[in-house]
Amino acid sequence: MTVNAYGAHAADKPLESLAITRRAPGPHDVQIEIAYCGVCHSDLHTVKAEWAGTVYPCVPGHEIVGRVSAVGAHVHGFLPGDLVGVGCMVDSCRHCADCEDGLENYCDGMVGTYNGPTADAPGHTLGGYSERIVVHERYVLRVRHPEEQLAAVAPLLCAGITTYSPLRHWNAGPGKTVGIVGIGGLGHMGIKLARAMGAHVVAFTTSESKRGDAAALGAHEVVVSRDAAALAARARSLDLIVDTVAAPHDLDAYLTLLKRDGTMVLVGAPATPHPSPQVFNLIMKRRALAGSMIGGIPETQEMLDFCAEHGIVADIEMIRADEINGAYERMLRGDVKYRFVIDNATLGA
Amino acid sequence: MTVNAYGAHAADKPLESLAITRRAPGPHDVQIEIAYCGVCHSDLHTVKAEWAGTVYPCVPGHEIVGRVSAVGAHVHGFLPGDLVGVGCMVDSCRHCADCEDGLENYCDGMVGTYNGPTADAPGHTLGGYSERIVVHERYVLRVRHPEEQLAAVAPLLCAGITTYSPLRHWNAGPGKTVGIVGIGGLGHMGIKLARAMGAHVVAFTTSESKRGDAAALGAHEVVVSRDAAALAARARSLDLIVDTVAAPHDLDAYLTLLKRDGTMVLVGAPATPHPSPQVFNLIMKRRALAGSMIGGIPETQEMLDFCAEHGIVADIEMIRADEINGAYERMLRGDVKYRFVIDNATLGA
Ligand SMILES: [Zn+2]
Ligand SMILES: [Zn+2]
Ligand SMILES: [Zn+2]
Ligand SMILES: [Zn+2]
Repeated sequence: MTVNAYGAHAADKPLESLAITRRAPGPHDVQIEIAYCGVCHSDLHTVKAEWAGTVYPCVPGHEIVGRVSAVGAHVHGFLPGDLVGVGCMVDSCRHCADCEDGLENYCDGMVGTYNGPTADAPGHTLGGYSERIVVHERYVLRVRHPEEQLAAVAPLLCAGITTYSPLRHWNAGPGKTVGIVGIGGLGHMGIKLARAMGAHVVAFTTSESKRGDAAALGAHEVVVSRDAAALAARARSLDLIVDTVAAPHDLDAYLTLLKRDGTMVLVGAPATPHPSPQVFNLIMKRRALAGSMIGGIPETQEMLDFCAEHGIVADIEMIRADEINGAYERMLRGDVKYRFVIDNATLGA
Repeated sequence: MTVNAYGAHAADKPLESLAITRRAPGPHDVQIEIAYCGVCHSDLHTVKAEWAGTVYPCVPGHEIVGRVSAVGAHVHGFLPGDLVGVGCMVDSCRHCADCEDGLENYCDGMVGTYNGPTADAPGHTLGGYSERIVVHERYVLRVRHPEEQLAAVAPLLCAGITTYSPLRHWNAGPGKTVGIVGIGGLGHMGIKLARAMGAHVVAFTTSESKRGDAAALGAHEVVVSRDAAALAARARSLDLIVDTVAAPHDLDAYLTLLKRDGTMVLVGAPATPHPSPQVFNLIMKRRALAGSMIGGIPETQEMLDFCAEHGIVADIEMIRADEINGAYERMLRGDVKYRFVIDNATLGA
């Protein structure tokens, strides 16, 4: 089956309309009419080959929501018409310790929703900037939000789970003080989620102009990270920091804000390393610097259900498919509050 | 009371015999006749003012064992004649969360056994290179080893607890594979302790010549870290790594050996930072890079009791007090298996 998509034929080419093929649903497959697809920084890095290994044509998109249009004979969990989502992965080995623990995101055989290996033509996966996708039922999530929120649910599939997973793993909740560094696509979700989990939320931003926005998102406190006195006032007071800033920056400024046994979790990998953190800041208070990558399928479902229950969605700006190249330019300038979402109905235009 | 000690009058002066004053025991104090004192790298760094803030005269030594010679009126836990130890601290604030949790080592008011603030003359604490010491009972440990092992117990008070604490905190034990990086004063204790805890122990050394020694200490496997193939064979297989090497080195070589959710704990702080670790290696498997500093008083007692029960002591080379300057030179060359211990009976010679 041929469907309309948006993608690039080379790293130095803009994204354009193109036709791709989707397989017929197998016994365990769910075929999805994609309604909306969020626009993630990873889309941009991949399509422009800023990370190694991009294969073309490249159709990005891993914040996918839509409606089931067909299911394979052995699919029992989904029916045509169901609202569903697909996140950053569409397959994994299914038998390793990570897969058995429901942490398919850490499986060595994890297959990304785009640019991953597949038997389907053209030999690599093609993502959510397309009218349809066919995905094994294990990697399909149920969306329980009201349908009118569907577009704003899309970013939960990457930005949402990427912040939810470390917040849950490191026990954000009542009685805990949690810092969120950076107020962008990931950070704005981190603030909303940490607040809904019951933590005391401190947002860190480089920009005084974002103070009001961070408070509106739910931060109890906002600290402008260029303000040394404001940082010092928060020294040794945070249980957990989720750092969403991928650009290289000073980690010690935040590590020193952690209490004894506190953890700072990086969810973005910079293209060049951060300045090396002072070991002394780790040793003095038994602090940890950790990393976390997306989340597993069961916890992605848990996150979606948590968000539905708490009325949480992303703050989005809807775009047409043919606006994607301009949207990438604006993303690079940080000029979006806080996530672009493609209206996939515009792909056929 | 005046006692014989060994210390330095300035950073560029050798250690020499000197007389110091000890306070009369207060109501909660324990007076100890020091039998032996281990020689730690911190002693050398402090006495040579390689870290900021050394005050002189400097009498190092925080691996102290001996016999109680007097106790204050309110001391109930110790009697004259008891075998006891004193480690890296002789006081702390006693009321903060760290102190209440028995983690006085992380208290902001922790007073080091030497070079720490005190009301006693000369205004800073003087350590175990001395005939006697007077310490508040809270910071005195009971030694349950046979007396003939006493000299080899001394290094447990710093090298032992510094490795025991992270091994326990990060759950080394049966079913866990634990790496110990570096086979020196700290590392040789780490191998013995991790083995006794029931973990599968992998020792990492830069030197092929240490292979037999590491195995003799109890390592199940020894990996020479310059052997890229041997390292690669251990990729993603360790639950915990305790890195005892304070010299700047490549952390990524070890981080990549951790399983998902594995932790690498640094127990030494380099004078200049390690090369910055790749964030990708943390994110990909939800790994953590942490630090740990010595251990609290209750866990130091637990460690001493664990060692007594398992017959664990340090491997030592006994020296006379007047051999200390040469011993420092040999320590800098790594020429000791694995800890020098001063026979404090030689201080009066
Ligand atoms: Zn993404
Ligand atoms: Zn797997
Ligand atoms: Zn020491
Ligand atoms: Zn305290």
